[in-house]
Amino acid sequence: MSEIITLNHGSGGKASQDLIKRIFIKSFGDPNAILSDSAILDIDSRKIAFTTDSFVIDPIFFPGGDIGKLAVCGTVNDIAVSGAIPKYLTASFILEEGLLIDDLKKIVDSMAKQAAIANVKIVAGDTKVVNKGKCDKIFINTTGIGILEKDFSYISTGEKIIAGDKIIVNGTLGDHSIAVLGVRNELEFKTEVQSDCACLHELIQDVLKAGMKMKFMRDITRGGLATVLNELAGIVNLGIELIEKDIPVKESVNGLCEILGFDPLYLANEGKVLMVVHQDDAKDIIEIMKKNPLGKESRVIGDIISDHPKMVVGKTEIGGKRIINMLQGEQLPRIC
Amino acid sequence: MSEIITLNHGSGGKASQDLIKRIFIKSFGDPNAILSDSAILDIDSRKIAFTTDSFVIDPIFFPGGDIGKLAVCGTVNDIAVSGAIPKYLTASFILEEGLLIDDLKKIVDSMAKQAAIANVKIVAGDTKVVNKGKCDKIFINTTGIGILEKDFSYISTGEKIIAGDKIIVNGTLGDHSIAVLGVRNELEFKTEVQSDCACLHELIQDVLKAGMKMKFMRDITRGGLATVLNELAGIVNLGIELIEKDIPVKESVNGLCEILGFDPLYLANEGKVLMVVHQDDAKDIIEIMKKNPLGKESRVIGDIISDHPKMVVGKTEIGGKRIINMLQGEQLPRIC
Repeated sequence: MSEIITLNHGSGGKASQDLIKRIFIKSFGDPNAILSDSAILDIDSRKIAFTTDSFVIDPIFFPGGDIGKLAVCGTVNDIAVSGAIPKYLTASFILEEGLLIDDLKKIVDSMAKQAAIANVKIVAGDTKVVNKGKCDKIFINTTGIGILEKDFSYISTGEKIIAGDKIIVNGTLGDHSIAVLGVRNELEFKTEVQSDCACLHELIQDVLKAGMKMKFMRDITRGGLATVLNELAGIVNLGIELIEKDIPVKESVNGLCEILGFDPLYLANEGKVLMVVHQDDAKDIIEIMKKNPLGKESRVIGDIISDHPKMVVGKTEIGGKRIINMLQGEQLPRIC
Repeated sequence: MSEIITLNHGSGGKASQDLIKRIFIKSFGDPNAILSDSAILDIDSRKIAFTTDSFVIDPIFFPGGDIGKLAVCGTVNDIAVSGAIPKYLTASFILEEGLLIDDLKKIVDSMAKQAAIANVKIVAGDTKVVNKGKCDKIFINTTGIGILEKDFSYISTGEKIIAGDKIIVNGTLGDHSIAVLGVRNELEFKTEVQSDCACLHELIQDVLKAGMKMKFMRDITRGGLATVLNELAGIVNLGIELIEKDIPVKESVNGLCEILGFDPLYLANEGKVLMVVHQDDAKDIIEIMKKNPLGKESRVIGDIISDHPKMVVGKTEIGGKRIINMLQGEQLPRIC
């Protein structure tokens, strides 16, 4: 039987990575090209970050945001975690015949508003329309350019990471996924949880400008914290130990996860960044982050260790341990 | 009743432009940002062209190409007509659950092959998967960066155009649309016509490097020649006169257009460029173009005139005249 694309291929987890390796890298060549969030390009003596993302979230309006806000924040964040300052975006729309012009207007207004907040310019665009039933309301691609003031290429590769480094997140995990699930028609629960959808570049720049020893950054989106950390452990060939009680998750999110059978470590976020920093700098970095509204709940959640290389292990309060694997299947299709 | 998106909004013609003006420019602000094919950005002292396009063509394989080849050529051409040399592309995929992995592989291989021919690098990517029935097999966004060796900004604005300038195209019109229509299931005709899908940057650079007086360039895609020329006439506030017998159209394309009720001037192309050049340079430019395989059938098809400003008029062989308006409805949805 012929092999086909499944929803798992869009999870951001293991199946996504296998597809990227088998199909895209095989044809396009350079592994760095596709695996990292941004490409870093040399334009004369200047380094720029260049990144792309398509957004297919369902539904297109959700508590805390909409597909337009998400499309700006998602690409801004991909640029920001490369250490670059986001400057320019393109916006390309695929519209379904029958989409309400009012809904399009709301979404475009939301993009413009978010771009203004983020101080990025939307400089070029494209619009296609497909027949009713051939897409789902609206898909948006944003592609962005950021400027690197310094060479931060080691931040994407994690090459400076050593055992003893601390792992930081800037707040609660899983809010975006739960907020979106709460408004999907097929689910019977209601929640007050809002998506964390936000542009993180100022929070990140606050830390970088203070001259702190940043080793690695990644925004925690599809596949969740577990997937980012498993990728990282594999790349740097070191172990990761999480202190489970220190991982911030809202009580309401935790409760719904228990009912629905989800693990918050695998849920997508749209306003969360994972940082790996030198242990001596962790306290100062958290202090800096807490001054920004998007970093108020920043904290250390674990360590880089030399034990069990390539593995992520969670330590529970009573001293138990569990292996935290990369996301295998697809928990939540079309979450971004 | 609430206003909705119709297929006309994706035509590239009048409805598309109205939507862009009413919704996108109103929110995003800068008209130049959205109306021209590429944004021109200053990165330090260097100017770069930045452009985006999403491809939703149906079917995804057609005589002369596939959606992957199209996605590379389309964005390369948008960069090329700004006078820039295309350098880097991102590639973002929206895949329908159930797509054959073999088809994806063919498409990705085709992109890699075309990128190698065009000497551009695909440097970053993204893949999303949506449930069966929520998109149509595969949509691809490509966004590109090109480097401007000189400031060619006047080529996008047409500001140097004067009465007496000559209008050139590099070959036959309508091949792409007819080739695609010929393999759509709902149509009962077969044709040998191949899509003209090709990367035009070398042809264009041949002319620019020779120091010729180029006034304006645009690739002739959705909406066809008629739409490009009407936009141009409006911008420069001059008239355009086409010599209809000089407009190159394959006999087979003409024949099918007559049967199907299409006008080749409104059909989409994917390997055709319109140039406006100083009348003294027209002959030399055509000579240069004819040396490139993609320019073998280059010719002058009309003039910029001071009569009837903002209007495009076709002169027939027997001396008759007809007004050639901008595309009003949608002839062929999902042609690119």
